[in-house]
Amino acid sequence: MVASFIAIGDELLIGKVVDTNSVFIAQKLSELGIQVIRRWTVGDTNKEILYALGEASSCCDLVFITGGLGPTKDDITKKSLSEYFNVELVFSESNLQHLKEILSQRGIGVKEAHLTQCYIPSNAQLLNNKLGTALGLWMEHRGKLFISMPGVPDEMQYILMHEVIPRIRELKYGNCFLSKTFHTCGIGETDIAEKLEKYLHDYLSQISIAYLPSIAQVKFRISVFGDDEKSLRMLLNQCEEKVRLNMGHLIFGEDDTSISQELGFLLIKSGLTLGTVESCTGGEIASKITSISGSSSYYKGSIVCYATELKEKLLNIDSMLIEEYSVYSKEVAEAMVRHSIDMLNTDLVISSTGIAGPDGGTEKLKVGTIFIACGNKQRVRIKKLMLGKNRDRNIEAASILALNLAREWILEKS
Amino acid sequence: MVASFIAIGDELLIGKVVDTNSVFIAQKLSELGIQVIRRWTVGDTNKEILYALGEASSCCDLVFITGGLGPTKDDITKKSLSEYFNVELVFSESNLQHLKEILSQRGIGVKEAHLTQCYIPSNAQLLNNKLGTALGLWMEHRGKLFISMPGVPDEMQYILMHEVIPRIRELKYGNCFLSKTFHTCGIGETDIAEKLEKYLHDYLSQISIAYLPSIAQVKFRISVFGDDEKSLRMLLNQCEEKVRLNMGHLIFGEDDTSISQELGFLLIKSGLTLGTVESCTGGEIASKITSISGSSSYYKGSIVCYATELKEKLLNIDSMLIEEYSVYSKEVAEAMVRHSIDMLNTDLVISSTGIAGPDGGTEKLKVGTIFIACGNKQRVRIKKLMLGKNRDRNIEAASILALNLAREWILEKS
Repeated sequence: MVASFIAIGDELLIGKVVDTNSVFIAQKLSELGIQVIRRWTVGDTNKEILYALGEASSCCDLVFITGGLGPTKDDITKKSLSEYFNVELVFSESNLQHLKEILSQRGIGVKEAHLTQCYIPSNAQLLNNKLGTALGLWMEHRGKLFISMPGVPDEMQYILMHEVIPRIRELKYGNCFLSKTFHTCGIGETDIAEKLEKYLHDYLSQISIAYLPSIAQVKFRISVFGDDEKSLRMLLNQCEEKVRLNMGHLIFGEDDTSISQELGFLLIKSGLTLGTVESCTGGEIASKITSISGSSSYYKGSIVCYATELKEKLLNIDSMLIEEYSVYSKEVAEAMVRHSIDMLNTDLVISSTGIAGPDGGTEKLKVGTIFIACGNKQRVRIKKLMLGKNRDRNIEAASILALNLAREWILEKS
Repeated sequence: MVASFIAIGDELLIGKVVDTNSVFIAQKLSELGIQVIRRWTVGDTNKEILYALGEASSCCDLVFITGGLGPTKDDITKKSLSEYFNVELVFSESNLQHLKEILSQRGIGVKEAHLTQCYIPSNAQLLNNKLGTALGLWMEHRGKLFISMPGVPDEMQYILMHEVIPRIRELKYGNCFLSKTFHTCGIGETDIAEKLEKYLHDYLSQISIAYLPSIAQVKFRISVFGDDEKSLRMLLNQCEEKVRLNMGHLIFGEDDTSISQELGFLLIKSGLTLGTVESCTGGEIASKITSISGSSSYYKGSIVCYATELKEKLLNIDSMLIEEYSVYSKEVAEAMVRHSIDMLNTDLVISSTGIAGPDGGTEKLKVGTIFIACGNKQRVRIKKLMLGKNRDRNIEAASILALNLAREWILEKS
């Protein structure tokens, strides 16, 4: 049982919006054993939408569509759907009722532009959307299912999770597709591939491995596909065992996780509290840590001493030390940890200092030279990173590697 | 002259990676007046790649392809290209030379897996990639151009900017497509649409308007398309004039900008320095500010007092005040500003405190209740936000609205 996905919107083609919906939909479908096999991204014109509907229905059983359900003039998805199905657009009283409810929650009345949202293809069932005015649509046509949802990510997610997934479960679609994703930090794609081809040598013909590099991290996914869930699960378990046995702490987590999440688990498990003192990462380490719900149980806070003045004033770091070694040095990274641990009243502190770029490098210290440190008064681990010239990438890489350094520090300790 | 884009990679279909390449490519092409009209996302199989190549070449002149050029087994793009063009795969000595150089920079030797990267379709010209082992490919076939690049974003960006765009410029492709994007914060899509239909009433038949909502922000893009650049530019200017005249400070910037960028410009212009004191946003405001290169000229740092303990200890906020009004209150948000401005030694400070969620709400204070404040000792502006239950969205929205509050504070002052 396969699905395809049509993303509608000029904004997606012209490069003004990143399509995150496709990621969410694919993840949720893969949990049901449904594979997304193709995706089309087309503009807000009738011709383009009809092209994509035709292509999609010829290659799969389920067609997911996002975008073009709003109240503005470029929202023409419903018109195109009715043309493709050769059915009428009809005014839906339940849709109007929904519109009134949502708008009254926001304290505004129904405007004329909103009324166009109430016309739906006559073969459509409405899918409730608690978060916005645009309802989803569920349509059957020549044995295929078409599901149309708004493009606003949280509204699409609401409809998918509360309305679409339960209905699909009832239909009992789906072959068996299992996968497991492993996360690594600070090791390259080719090195991982070499290791896996060795450790998983006996399984390579029955599994597929994909490598998903991102900044400072590589994930790899082992997938198996077939009819018999039990034997597939056994195969996947055997692969996992080999991987864990041979790669140990190189793997920091699996499936939907992040380095912040895993560090959080480790802190909770070991009963330690954490603080941060950031210079070049400018709050990004703190932000990554606090993106995790429940982080307040182990994380206390950060001093972002972006200006050198604040390193001296707030942290009491000796200006002589800064002068002697430069503010971008392992000595200052270490002092940032030692001077803040009492202030923040935590068991360990992560620090960062360096040149994020793109400007600010010197002959001795190139752009991308960043020092990260982690520790307490007894033991500080420091790493010197030699990154590139891209500011965003450098901040992201240094933040992730700093979180990984804290993970290593705790694992070493225990 | 139109282009299309093929993104290759199981990881894109299965929802493990967000496709940001398409955004970058589309933006750069639109600057050349080239429109991307369709996009296909397909898996790492020969059949799927051949399907997309066939479809793409039947609807446009330029086909951009990313992914599948790496050294691992799922990288089969070159094989599929050569099959589609009906040409041989040949071993490229220059490719081997490049590989050796890149790998020696990384201090590693050429491994067998790397050698497969040296086979290229015989009709391909190589496009240099300073950042990685996978070179780009430039191929002509039946009057159409095919450009294949690696899927790793910074490598793709390097090849596009340094190799592809200059060559396309030489070909003088491209009709005239002009657009301008305006950024707003804290106002809804429907309200903006109503305003624009009024203010731009006389131009609506000649322009197209698209609305691009994201968290706490709505961008709208006015586009014009045709042959005569001069008259198109005039039309766009007239629209801009109307928009600026009627919407004033509701618009905080245009085209490729962000609220952090615009706040930075305003701080530089008014000669003011900025600090932040964050609770529920956990460093995200600081991170957004320091994501801007050059922010060190106006931004000094942040105290992220995530734990209540640190609000008392580092900021000297009276525990009685916290007890009386709760830590999530306008009184505490204001105290955070007043108590930190001397410590941070800045002209203004932004603060945040509230319940990001998804847990932690009480009967009196619902999840999503967040107070943001901005000011100095003389004048503090405070806003109470009533957001939703999604933690990430709440942190993002509060951070953006806090930056906008600072923008308003400065504009009010001057």
